[in-house]
Amino acid sequence: TEAGETIRATLFPGDGIGPEIAESVKQVFKVAGVPIEWEEHYVGTEVDPRTESFLTWESLESVRRNKVGLKGPMATPIGKGHRSLNLTLRKELGLYANVRPCNSLPGYKTRYDDVNLVTIRENTEGEYSGLEHQVVRGVVESLKIITRQASLRVAEYAFHYAKTNGRERVSAIHKANIMRKTDGLFLKCCREVAEKYPEIIYEEVIIDNCCMTLVKNPGTFDVLVMPNLYGDIISDLCAGLIGGLGLTPSCNIGEGGICLAEAVHGSAPDISGKNLANPTALMLSAVMMLRHLQFNDQAERIHNAILQTIAEGKYRTADLGGKSSTSDYTKAVCDHI
Amino acid sequence: TEAGETIRATLFPGDGIGPEIAESVKQVFKVAGVPIEWEEHYVGTEVDPRTESFLTWESLESVRRNKVGLKGPMATPIGKGHRSLNLTLRKELGLYANVRPCNSLPGYKTRYDDVNLVTIRENTEGEYSGLEHQVVRGVVESLKIITRQASLRVAEYAFHYAKTNGRERVSAIHKANIMRKTDGLFLKCCREVAEKYPEIIYEEVIIDNCCMTLVKNPGTFDVLVMPNLYGDIISDLCAGLIGGLGLTPSCNIGEGGICLAEAVHGSAPDISGKNLANPTALMLSAVMMLRHLQFNDQAERIHNAILQTIAEGKYRTADLGGKSSTSDYTKAVCDHI
Ligand SMILES: CC(C)[C@H](C(=O)O)[C@@H](O)C(=O)O
Ligand SMILES: CC(C)[C@H](C(=O)O)[C@@H](O)C(=O)O
Repeated sequence: TEAGETIRATLFPGDGIGPEIAESVKQVFKVAGVPIEWEEHYVGTEVDPRTESFLTWESLESVRRNKVGLKGPMATPIGKGHRSLNLTLRKELGLYANVRPCNSLPGYKTRYDDVNLVTIRENTEGEYSGLEHQVVRGVVESLKIITRQASLRVAEYAFHYAKTNGRERVSAIHKANIMRKTDGLFLKCCREVAEKYPEIIYEEVIIDNCCMTLVKNPGTFDVLVMPNLYGDIISDLCAGLIGGLGLTPSCNIGEGGICLAEAVHGSAPDISGKNLANPTALMLSAVMMLRHLQFNDQAERIHNAILQTIAEGKYRTADLGGKSSTSDYTKAVCDHI
Repeated sequence: TEAGETIRATLFPGDGIGPEIAESVKQVFKVAGVPIEWEEHYVGTEVDPRTESFLTWESLESVRRNKVGLKGPMATPIGKGHRSLNLTLRKELGLYANVRPCNSLPGYKTRYDDVNLVTIRENTEGEYSGLEHQVVRGVVESLKIITRQASLRVAEYAFHYAKTNGRERVSAIHKANIMRKTDGLFLKCCREVAEKYPEIIYEEVIIDNCCMTLVKNPGTFDVLVMPNLYGDIISDLCAGLIGGLGLTPSCNIGEGGICLAEAVHGSAPDISGKNLANPTALMLSAVMMLRHLQFNDQAERIHNAILQTIAEGKYRTADLGGKSSTSDYTKAVCDHI
């Protein structure tokens, strides 16, 4: 990105508290002088009265064109007719890797203070194939699909990430002692890629053992790469170690170099519109987006401002045990920039 | 069980450290005056020179006849030709529910001190179907099978367990927002059974959220029931909360009222035969077996002796940060009985 250039980025505020926390990010970006112009589109579980749609072609095209975007929460109704919008976006935009750095936040006390790891989740296949059948009455099956292509792609991303982010080790998480073919193929692909990165230590950890070690001693992990469902489970577990999804950033890497940063917490309809939501996860996700764009300076300043505000503890939203409104907390972050 | 009666129980010491820790249980039972006569059979990953077999028909028949047994660790080699012996036993004996009480041990410090929950895992189907295929080169699939019969059976067991053990709540763990048919059927069965137990609170928790809540606030859970793989993952996670698999008892409930108690940790070949292994998990599993047999008196005395020995902290094996040998620790437990 050249100096003085303005970047267009897509913004999907999403459902529930989405618009409020997106507003926080806009303010913070303005104060930090981030040269980004937002292209805002509604994607969510309510039909947009303007477009009569949940998800328009223009919304998708916006991300494809800008190659960078920020996404708020979208509710996934259990058992409703239409497919999850989160899954639709992953599919339509080929978002093959979900990246979640997970670091203990200085000053925000949990039972753990040494978490410093990154989960990298295959985001397009595995248990999320959507292929399910009733075999006979009372007997149903779901298909888990693992492909060589998607496994190599996410493994490649994980090792590349480790190398370019000064990480030492990649652990592939699996259950290949039971799912010998599917998880076996996933491991085979990880091993192939590992060969090309002799400077990165490679290990394989069975998922049950991984979860046990994570709660006993999370400091032993560095970069974790895994199939879709394990990534879903483990990334939430890791978020729990540092305080929850309200504090954990995430970003999705897609085909053609797309980077769609995303807050992965829920849309919290109960507190929506009340100026109570915690915008931290979306802010931290936005920081990931800035790093992706090589706006390292602004990324660093915003990141430090968030960390300082949380460490001081004076302005915290209710989910973190504080009493601040969304706007007061946002103002505090802006003041720290 | 009538007074004075001797019960025959099957013992599979298993691989690695299995024989040593089984020896500890025998001693403890003797000191506590448990009227059990062991029928010992070798089942393990080495071919038994006497029978030239990994698993004999007589071993299975012994459990089927006695309906009660105790099992040490059996290694599951990754990618070796033969099927896991653990899975074979589950299948042959119809061990449909794996029950793992998970309680913080007074005096053994971890990051958590309020864990008091039980995981109940469907143990025969789901992701463990063994049905896997290569669809085309580079594309493999595994089938997850959920049946109404097995789901009702484990749900029934979970609610019955909750009721007879003074528990208040059963949480069904699932990912039905993604696997709508398979996990959907599992939930449907749980709901059906829940109707019959109006005195037990029933709730449904998505697995990723469950794992996050477990690491943040495990005290909120009571009885958890779930499909096979989720049970595998969550039971190990829970074990991690209280210190690891070396401290967690387990027992399998099978067709025709079989109860096969089991230490679920590994066979630890590196320390096998060195008098260093921790027999606690197998002892606690043996206590579950005694409770099943209504030997409540002896169960209570042995259980308390184990808890006291660990709480005092004078005799602990190396995995718990101590310096005791298996036999010294066992002797300490015997002395407390
Ligand atoms: C909402 C749900 C479909 C989604 C998932 O399972 O992937 C969520 O848990 C996540 O991790 O982004
Ligand atoms: C050894 C392995 C096959 C087994 C399983 O996955 O069920 C183990 O992890 C367990 O929990 O008993």
